[in-house]
Amino acid sequence: MAVYVMKFGGSSVGDSERMKRVARRIIEKQDEGHQVMVVVSAMGDTTDDLIDQANMLSNNPPQREMDMLLTTGEQISIALLSIAIHEMGRKAVSFTGWQAGFRTEAEHGRARITDIRPERVQRALNEGNIVIVAGFQGMTEEGEITTFGRGGSDTTAVALAAATAADYCEIYTDVDGIYSTDPRIVKNARKLNEISYDEMLELANLGAAVLHPRAVEYAKQFQVRLVVRSSFNHNEGTVVKEEATMEQGVVVSGIAYDKNVARISILGVSHVPGVLAKVFGSLADAKINVDIIVQSGVEDGKADFSFTVGLDDRENALDVLSTIRSEIPYDDVTYEDGLVKISIVGAGMVSHPGVAAEMFDVISKQGVNIKMVSTSEIKVSCVIEGTKLNEVIKALHTAYGLDTESQVFVGGPQDRR
Amino acid sequence: MAVYVMKFGGSSVGDSERMKRVARRIIEKQDEGHQVMVVVSAMGDTTDDLIDQANMLSNNPPQREMDMLLTTGEQISIALLSIAIHEMGRKAVSFTGWQAGFRTEAEHGRARITDIRPERVQRALNEGNIVIVAGFQGMTEEGEITTFGRGGSDTTAVALAAATAADYCEIYTDVDGIYSTDPRIVKNARKLNEISYDEMLELANLGAAVLHPRAVEYAKQFQVRLVVRSSFNHNEGTVVKEEATMEQGVVVSGIAYDKNVARISILGVSHVPGVLAKVFGSLADAKINVDIIVQSGVEDGKADFSFTVGLDDRENALDVLSTIRSEIPYDDVTYEDGLVKISIVGAGMVSHPGVAAEMFDVISKQGVNIKMVSTSEIKVSCVIEGTKLNEVIKALHTAYGLDTESQVFVGGPQDRR
Repeated sequence: MAVYVMKFGGSSVGDSERMKRVARRIIEKQDEGHQVMVVVSAMGDTTDDLIDQANMLSNNPPQREMDMLLTTGEQISIALLSIAIHEMGRKAVSFTGWQAGFRTEAEHGRARITDIRPERVQRALNEGNIVIVAGFQGMTEEGEITTFGRGGSDTTAVALAAATAADYCEIYTDVDGIYSTDPRIVKNARKLNEISYDEMLELANLGAAVLHPRAVEYAKQFQVRLVVRSSFNHNEGTVVKEEATMEQGVVVSGIAYDKNVARISILGVSHVPGVLAKVFGSLADAKINVDIIVQSGVEDGKADFSFTVGLDDRENALDVLSTIRSEIPYDDVTYEDGLVKISIVGAGMVSHPGVAAEMFDVISKQGVNIKMVSTSEIKVSCVIEGTKLNEVIKALHTAYGLDTESQVFVGGPQDRR
Repeated sequence: MAVYVMKFGGSSVGDSERMKRVARRIIEKQDEGHQVMVVVSAMGDTTDDLIDQANMLSNNPPQREMDMLLTTGEQISIALLSIAIHEMGRKAVSFTGWQAGFRTEAEHGRARITDIRPERVQRALNEGNIVIVAGFQGMTEEGEITTFGRGGSDTTAVALAAATAADYCEIYTDVDGIYSTDPRIVKNARKLNEISYDEMLELANLGAAVLHPRAVEYAKQFQVRLVVRSSFNHNEGTVVKEEATMEQGVVVSGIAYDKNVARISILGVSHVPGVLAKVFGSLADAKINVDIIVQSGVEDGKADFSFTVGLDDRENALDVLSTIRSEIPYDDVTYEDGLVKISIVGAGMVSHPGVAAEMFDVISKQGVNIKMVSTSEIKVSCVIEGTKLNEVIKALHTAYGLDTESQVFVGGPQDRR
């Protein structure tokens, strides 16, 4: 007997037929002799519908009341799933986030878990119940209802697995697992059998929307064995764990991309101490998330540097820069859209020199200019013009030996909550 | 400054325009210098929609999970109403039943309140907030979510008013108040300015669907001053309190009727001790609600008696009677449908003899037979043939001096939760 946490996203429980299918899937797991906890998101479009209702009343609804509103979505899901399981003759008990013992900070809309008190879940489990927990939600010590923000249900699942020392945390999605790259672009992308937490983190951050980075961080921190698999079939999925077994000859595990990239350059900045701190401190104060930062050499006491932000933040970033010009004089500011960040990720890179050089070579052979470069121990990212994205990804996928014989079936858009 | 509880039913908050209107109404009250708590039901058809979703999964969903499901309806309402009030520039805080301190028995679907701990509500109120509480719901000591059953939001409002020693508990409906009889039948029915708890209880139990009997019981027990008024206008409504001021010459306050009546007669029962206890004990065990019981005289050691039940319970009641025939021998059982119970209610009856006699006279002058009679200190009920109901009600209304000059505008069906 093992202890499982099974997490189902909103599209997996979008209507009563899907709900029943999920219920059967859960019962199969119990029939194999396991103890089963389930984490479920709000059904289909429920969350968006609730947000629409709020927006009809206010352009700026208070986040506390939005948490009060949105947590009903998951509460409806857990109740209905429990009803479906009862109908199939099994014992099931649903719990809201606060009932399941999720304690959080008092940050409405993006609370972090501070503590989990799983006694009630554990008791229900030991009494033979399938335990169903509402994803995405918790409660402060003062009894205020909170939500975790995007990817919250993944985080609930991993945290619950950690708190109950579950053997597996299975994340059910509409794809078969984690792929070497986006199968919509590369038809013969490779499904990975295993991947390390660190690799998954890089891929998750880079826009491989299957697992939320925060959930992966949690899994790494508490050494939760994650499995990403399909809710539509019984294929094995991808195991995410501390040290993935290196497949023969595979240095790069995956290729990710991010189209949400704007580059901003500040030219001719006086190179005095504290300049970078001032610029990026001001951007951070404006809650602008800066990704890659590149500084060129200093000439005549002046430096140029460039950084990337999300497209939505570009205008704000330019505003911030003009605001600070009186303190930090510079010659000019330029920006560029239509870019994409492409990244190769692989734990094997550390011991294989020349991986980055090969990447640059492949990209340049496609006739594409590299605008910026950023590297970590297990990742190389290049910001390039977006026009030839697909060709570049395909070329890199082939160059690093990731192509398989088979073609991948690709489902609908992945549910991220 | 006074302290108010304002309760709005589901039809009053059925869409965002109505929600805004309710928000303005609440703000008006605060502008008059009062502290305001609000109790609100689930919006429009939300509850029915949720029940439909459950029924698509199961014919017999567990009541615990139904409570988990249905309480989301009120949670959505309180969040949206709070958002609407914030948008109008006021401070508001919403609380679920458990957050507002409602503790109940562990009877899912029809829990009774055991305790209210209003500290959190009181604190938020003292901090200048409009406090919005979800109706119809509470929590057991073990942290299980429960609901109160039909009329639950009225009960929440009255109980909250009692626990916080509020000066007024206003129940907003789609009618102007409590009427001397059903304005759909008698166009010039009289709106009552005041009515006593006991009279209201008789009227509520008799099918005047504006206030739930349980809420009235609560109000009487804790001496909460209730006001029933319209959410569509600013008319004064009806005050329900301990001793209503007797209006000049008015002995009968109201006339109620109930079409949900079946009469069952047991003929030739051996008149030995314990017979009545056995018959009505068996019916109670089968959860059949018996209303009027009439026993005729005893002859040759045998008695006939009749009782009324709801139409839905008639078949069950007949089954129970045939089951116990071996223990309680009787000659025959008969039943009759198509009946109606008509009742006159008035605290003034006690000191005015002849009220019942006048009722019998009025009914017989309409050529209608009286099948059964039941009386209490403030009520006389007659079970009659249903065919001439409207004529009888109109005649009684006139006979007891209840007609007014003006005609009453009648809205849609009243929301009962």
